[in-house]
Amino acid sequence: MADIYVRGGWIITMDSKRRIIKDGAIAIEDGEIRAVGKAEELDKDYRYHSDVVINNNPHDIVMPGLINTHVHLAQGLLRACADYLPLIPWLKDRVWPLQGNYKPGEALASAKLVTLEMIKTGTTTFLETGLVGRYGPDKIIEFLHSSGIRAAVARHVMDMTGYALEENILHEGLIELGDKSYKDTIRLYHKYHGWDNRIWIWFGPRTPGAVSIELYRKMAEKAKELKTGITMHLAEVKADVEYTMTKFGKKPVEFAHWVGLTGPNVVLVHVVWATDEEIKLLAETKTTVSHNPCSNMKLASGAARISDMLKAGVNVALGTDGGPSNNDYDLLREMKHAALLQPLRTLDAKAIRVEQVLEMATINGARALMIDHMVGSIEPGKRADIIVVDFNKPHLKPFNNPLSHLVYSATGYDVKHSIIDGKLVMFNGKVLTLDEEEILKEADKAAYSLYERAGLCREPETIWPIE
Amino acid sequence: MADIYVRGGWIITMDSKRRIIKDGAIAIEDGEIRAVGKAEELDKDYRYHSDVVINNNPHDIVMPGLINTHVHLAQGLLRACADYLPLIPWLKDRVWPLQGNYKPGEALASAKLVTLEMIKTGTTTFLETGLVGRYGPDKIIEFLHSSGIRAAVARHVMDMTGYALEENILHEGLIELGDKSYKDTIRLYHKYHGWDNRIWIWFGPRTPGAVSIELYRKMAEKAKELKTGITMHLAEVKADVEYTMTKFGKKPVEFAHWVGLTGPNVVLVHVVWATDEEIKLLAETKTTVSHNPCSNMKLASGAARISDMLKAGVNVALGTDGGPSNNDYDLLREMKHAALLQPLRTLDAKAIRVEQVLEMATINGARALMIDHMVGSIEPGKRADIIVVDFNKPHLKPFNNPLSHLVYSATGYDVKHSIIDGKLVMFNGKVLTLDEEEILKEADKAAYSLYERAGLCREPETIWPIE
Repeated sequence: MADIYVRGGWIITMDSKRRIIKDGAIAIEDGEIRAVGKAEELDKDYRYHSDVVINNNPHDIVMPGLINTHVHLAQGLLRACADYLPLIPWLKDRVWPLQGNYKPGEALASAKLVTLEMIKTGTTTFLETGLVGRYGPDKIIEFLHSSGIRAAVARHVMDMTGYALEENILHEGLIELGDKSYKDTIRLYHKYHGWDNRIWIWFGPRTPGAVSIELYRKMAEKAKELKTGITMHLAEVKADVEYTMTKFGKKPVEFAHWVGLTGPNVVLVHVVWATDEEIKLLAETKTTVSHNPCSNMKLASGAARISDMLKAGVNVALGTDGGPSNNDYDLLREMKHAALLQPLRTLDAKAIRVEQVLEMATINGARALMIDHMVGSIEPGKRADIIVVDFNKPHLKPFNNPLSHLVYSATGYDVKHSIIDGKLVMFNGKVLTLDEEEILKEADKAAYSLYERAGLCREPETIWPIE
Repeated sequence: MADIYVRGGWIITMDSKRRIIKDGAIAIEDGEIRAVGKAEELDKDYRYHSDVVINNNPHDIVMPGLINTHVHLAQGLLRACADYLPLIPWLKDRVWPLQGNYKPGEALASAKLVTLEMIKTGTTTFLETGLVGRYGPDKIIEFLHSSGIRAAVARHVMDMTGYALEENILHEGLIELGDKSYKDTIRLYHKYHGWDNRIWIWFGPRTPGAVSIELYRKMAEKAKELKTGITMHLAEVKADVEYTMTKFGKKPVEFAHWVGLTGPNVVLVHVVWATDEEIKLLAETKTTVSHNPCSNMKLASGAARISDMLKAGVNVALGTDGGPSNNDYDLLREMKHAALLQPLRTLDAKAIRVEQVLEMATINGARALMIDHMVGSIEPGKRADIIVVDFNKPHLKPFNNPLSHLVYSATGYDVKHSIIDGKLVMFNGKVLTLDEEEILKEADKAAYSLYERAGLCREPETIWPIE
């Protein structure tokens, strides 16, 4: 007897043995995976004794839900608003003026759009990198819970105008000085952390210069005490290396380590420009690197040394980054970009294997979020976060190597069913927890009012005439 | 009165002014575009006087069908059969032994699979790079015609074992010595060239070493006489530069020029390793370069200097390459890879614009195939090759810059309708000219028998245990 019995297809378990089970089946009860095995063995207990039986085609792929470790919920409405710009003008001229003009309802509309896209493309858990007060974080978190998704939500923390305002580039709408942002993170923590084991509150410090050394250290201590995580952008562009070298005489990862921002509860994002010593330090401290290949390419940030990091034993996870840097939130497509970037960077076709990329998108992401005891693989005792990928499509034929097809050929829209925490959240491409049409309409409406207020992105940025 | 009236949405015309028409409409009669304009103006003549009216949503995108300038039809069944290998072992150990073992029915099954994937993902015209006798080219060409697609089909030409067999790497099943392949190309030309203005026969010489200088020159002359095209791989990897330098004292493009393989009827594929002088020569001779970013990344070939080529005035078109090098045939997704690769290569976020990428995938491809008088843009007098992209999806919202969304966010599966030569070939994602289910089944069946015979690719290439 199970609540849901997922039957048929190939199960990519991602368990510690990385077993792949042909003609497999999974029994789910009370949100938990109770049994995983061959369908012919499990059928007698579950096939005719379950509330719901989901019958897959023999070549469908059943795998753990994807874990996106770098998401900007507030950048959904900014998709295509900042093309052709390197990081600093990208932030200064577009992203911050737009994000700094948000009204809470608009930020919520953005979060809804991004969440809808993620669920539709197979993401079941994600790490939001930094909400601020003006987005209305409470409403966003409550929406996330209602959508059925699992999320670690970092709240941005800062106490200085610093790096950003030194160059007058951090829009005032995003500045939170003193202990305001730190205190609000603690407030959110006590209000939401651990909610149904699907919502966690993290610290999301801004980059060096906007956070004092004291606050970094206080936050690091507090995160340990509260058993929660910290995520921060680091060494995204070459100028970031110059900044910490000049200001603190330290390379970026050394700087992070110095202020307490390394360790198994820390996700450093991008880390494009890292030396061998820094990579060693990341591995030793069990710090996670969130790799975002599309963003690094589009913003001309550079190619992160992911194959070197994996060799050194760093926990590398995968992220899409946001609407104006990618410009999608589809982690299945991101896997391909990750798989292609390393051979190009090293001119070595063997630089990375599809298995490693699949780990980055699943179990490594779970480890990054400190929930690998709970999700990231399909095995008894874990919560049921499971997606089914429809392989009866021309770009996924012939059926010879499903792992290769997942990484090099599939897109998120090949995912047909999604189960999160044992609940059917998407069936046959339709999201059951959200009003899809309404969210798409709201996104347009909110975007136009935001663009109008910010005086940006009101017309398509094209050199071609529009009639 | 029109046969088909496409009404509503934004039309990206790609005409000489690159006009974009909001709430546009297109009238099609006898396969030809008769009128393009604002719907409110054309409605009176066509809305109630056409056989078929296709009503689009206001934010749907209507654009010229995509043109894929580098396709290996015979590599569809080889998808995922050659991961982690650089070009030479990729060819020697996997691709040639598999392709050299084809029986005609299997090669046809591969061609069908690839054609189905291309039509579903918005390609309306493509350039096949080289069929050989053992694939049964006649049947493949007849199938292409029946599918409704438009194709320039190159037949491989060679007269030496050369480069390939010097290293004993060209599988004997693919060797055609003497004048056999040249003569067969001429035969195919007279049988099929110009068929319904949808099929053309090109010369597809193998790379330097497998073709004598005399044959290159004879082919170049003959192609001019027959007013047809030539396509060849060139300078794909660094070793290709060493080869022509050592053998002929010439850089690859100089070599091509020396044997007659430059000009407006020549498509050189990859051209990853080109000097400034070679780029200048390509521009001066109006030679097309087919850029295949995924393939170049996956095989660790390198990053082609596309932004430099565009600046120099080279006609750059886009291609997906094949199943084991990409591993998909989705030109919409290839656009994103093209847009991301140049900023990374140059560390300049402005290296390439989405407009340039859209040109590469449409009008530049038409110019490459010498059919830009006929297709590649939406304007009166041209044949109607038109696709409609469904923009009512989360990853294509908000609707602010459709050009950016097409390049950075869309995938080929967002294409809902496809019209080729005025015929509705796909409607709402369903291909009307092909039996989709049958083609998918045939692909698996043919692949398994090919793998068995070649002794390759019989099990998923994974380091993980399969139960």
